[in-house]
Amino acid sequence: MTARRLVVIGGDAGGMTAASQARRRATPDELDIVAFERGDYTSYSACGIPYFIGGLVADVDDLVARSPAEHRANGIDLRTRTDVTAIDLQARTVTTHDVDSGRAVTEPFDDLVIATGATPLRPPLPGVDAHGIYGVQTLGDGVRLRDEVVASAATNGPVVVVGGGYVGLELAEALHRRGRPVTVVEAGAQPMSTLDADMGALVGDAIRGLGITLLTDTAVDGFETDTNGRVRAVTIGDHTIATDTVVLGLGVKPNVELAHAAGIDIGPSAGIATDAHMATSAAHVWAAGDCAESRHRVSNRPVAIALGTHANKQGRVVGINVTGGDVTFGGVIGTAATKICEYEVARTGLNEREARDAGFDVDTATIEATSRAGYYPDTTPITVKFVVERGRGRLLGGQIIGREGAAKRIDVLATAIWNEMTVEEIQQLDLAYAPPFSTVWDPVLVAARKAAEQLSPTHRP
Amino acid sequence: MTARRLVVIGGDAGGMTAASQARRRATPDELDIVAFERGDYTSYSACGIPYFIGGLVADVDDLVARSPAEHRANGIDLRTRTDVTAIDLQARTVTTHDVDSGRAVTEPFDDLVIATGATPLRPPLPGVDAHGIYGVQTLGDGVRLRDEVVASAATNGPVVVVGGGYVGLELAEALHRRGRPVTVVEAGAQPMSTLDADMGALVGDAIRGLGITLLTDTAVDGFETDTNGRVRAVTIGDHTIATDTVVLGLGVKPNVELAHAAGIDIGPSAGIATDAHMATSAAHVWAAGDCAESRHRVSNRPVAIALGTHANKQGRVVGINVTGGDVTFGGVIGTAATKICEYEVARTGLNEREARDAGFDVDTATIEATSRAGYYPDTTPITVKFVVERGRGRLLGGQIIGREGAAKRIDVLATAIWNEMTVEEIQQLDLAYAPPFSTVWDPVLVAARKAAEQLSPTHRP
Repeated sequence: MTARRLVVIGGDAGGMTAASQARRRATPDELDIVAFERGDYTSYSACGIPYFIGGLVADVDDLVARSPAEHRANGIDLRTRTDVTAIDLQARTVTTHDVDSGRAVTEPFDDLVIATGATPLRPPLPGVDAHGIYGVQTLGDGVRLRDEVVASAATNGPVVVVGGGYVGLELAEALHRRGRPVTVVEAGAQPMSTLDADMGALVGDAIRGLGITLLTDTAVDGFETDTNGRVRAVTIGDHTIATDTVVLGLGVKPNVELAHAAGIDIGPSAGIATDAHMATSAAHVWAAGDCAESRHRVSNRPVAIALGTHANKQGRVVGINVTGGDVTFGGVIGTAATKICEYEVARTGLNEREARDAGFDVDTATIEATSRAGYYPDTTPITVKFVVERGRGRLLGGQIIGREGAAKRIDVLATAIWNEMTVEEIQQLDLAYAPPFSTVWDPVLVAARKAAEQLSPTHRP
Repeated sequence: MTARRLVVIGGDAGGMTAASQARRRATPDELDIVAFERGDYTSYSACGIPYFIGGLVADVDDLVARSPAEHRANGIDLRTRTDVTAIDLQARTVTTHDVDSGRAVTEPFDDLVIATGATPLRPPLPGVDAHGIYGVQTLGDGVRLRDEVVASAATNGPVVVVGGGYVGLELAEALHRRGRPVTVVEAGAQPMSTLDADMGALVGDAIRGLGITLLTDTAVDGFETDTNGRVRAVTIGDHTIATDTVVLGLGVKPNVELAHAAGIDIGPSAGIATDAHMATSAAHVWAAGDCAESRHRVSNRPVAIALGTHANKQGRVVGINVTGGDVTFGGVIGTAATKICEYEVARTGLNEREARDAGFDVDTATIEATSRAGYYPDTTPITVKFVVERGRGRLLGGQIIGREGAAKRIDVLATAIWNEMTVEEIQQLDLAYAPPFSTVWDPVLVAARKAAEQLSPTHRP
């Protein structure tokens, strides 16, 4: 029997989870697995990069869950520093390009997994390609920024972060932790546009409280460069902010050029279109991770949300299906969390704007409670917001801001949304209580109760 | 219009939540509300008593959510130090007994809420009624034990805790924190019999690691007393353990004598039988809190689980129904959590034994993971156990032991069990991930995946 051949494009979570899962289910006699990675690292935690830059994680290898050598020892023919430049669906081949030698090779496949990830958005502004302006997505990006930060530690120059989303704020904290004066420039009225403005304002207060300068409603117009082509200032209208390092935190776009050029369908979210099995429009071609589109369970719309959690789950689905299994990816509900110094921020489902865009009639309820029993030491405030479908009372989304222990409470909301629970049902949930962990009415239940009372026709406030 | 009259027996969570909810929904012109409390305190946190005894909470008033005076100001005729000694269902009256004056009064009611709570089990052993042997259930009990501990601080005498359940261990920690040598005597093979033995063993290791002596498989035979009638030793077979203070942590029994004597049905769990509206077998008589039975959603059996979370929810249901509303109590699933020094322990649903008793064919999966990304500072181990229905794969129960941030993860399992999710579905959940909070595969998802793989017909380990 000749082994079939599985080719994987991309060596991070989506691709290597697919490869590893397939390796568990098929012997080398049954399946050859070859994976191509453009950079030097495989299976790393992109989410850990801010902690590496900030110095909480000392060694870049700590962020690598499985190295190329470990993948090879596991029976995967892993080739780093190898770009894939074309897919030929007719010939069932990919063309690879050795980054160092420039050599091109044609490699056959029976099944193909596209896991090309995403790239930080780089707006077409004057000077945006100057030295010293960093987008941080790959571990290679992270290493370059850290090297820069360490090398320039003596000058302690100011840093500008463009974009106040999760990645921007995490990198802002990391650079603040390194002792750099940090300014975050956000085009919107509040940071964290994935939250509603009222919750984003709480994050903004927290950021400013740390000593980070936060400019909201502020659009960057361009970048001034010095004679060496290095950024020296950020231009905002008539003003400039002097800086020698800029970090772009404007989000990412799925890397779909390779798939698009091969004639594979790209979806409305700009990710590679997939079905529930994570199959693309081309037979025996699959997609996983940041480049792939999937279904949002609440809006029922295709979305491309770049998170390692989805990449891992999608990779697992692909690895099973590519080896004769039959499992589906259940979709996403937009759960995300971050920690900015002592502040924990989390969201799930749809925020108010997203819920209205998706056609829902929306009500909201926001409560402030405490993380522990009021009398227990070290109790801190926690704010919980519910976004609810008016009438039926189904929970559509939730947002939580607090300190220690706040963020992971979002998982109750995520599980409730997954199961299409109403707020009337949620307030009945038998959640854990002990004074060190919660109030006797858990903050989540308090928010559910408030939302349920608002929706009740006999509501007396 | 003459106001109807609501009488509430019992001034803690179940009764006073019912009273307060009713007060919100009905004006004094519509409804008189009278509540009788045997002791001095109302609406207090029994769960906070160990922290008061241990000294983490300085003032007993901090444990009181709403005092008698506050209830009165809220329009509830609250009478402390007033026992209710009889219910006459024909005459629609209760007989009250003033604890101080001994005066008896007959009070009419239209609706009656029985919220008489529970009493610590006191086994019929020789000497069990000696001075210095404490059952701790009411805030009054807690004040007496604390006074004793403070008064005898100079002697620093050894303490024996009989029973290694939640309350026993929390009190053991509190007394250990006070510098007392503590011995916990547990009849079972492991402490925390609400957990499976393998998880209980982890708790036992933790307890011993704190310097608390833990004797398992050890039954207490009686108590020796001195000439003043005070306990001086615990007898175990041929041995004695010298002590001057004993704490009983053997669980509680519902206080149903009053209801039983009135002819109200008591259920198989020994709690007052209720329907989903928390109505008893007698018209216009309701029950809430530790004295009341409710339905376990997984076993579908009646249970009486003494927890403030249930008392509050049941009280709310009664308060709404007694004022013309129509809501039901959704039942319980046995969620509970505690913290013993740095160890967090939580459970929900059915444990292995309970699941087998309820007639399920049971499989289990236990995993060890970490509380944060492996590379993130202060990462600690976390153990998650799933109890699963074989075949269908429905999650029946779960147990979690770890350190900071471990216990409240049980809420995801509780929400999943509430919705009758299978482990195949659970492993797809979109839970929050960030390196300070979780691994990219959340420990709950890892356990679900392991359980799902075990159940799969094509499972390759």
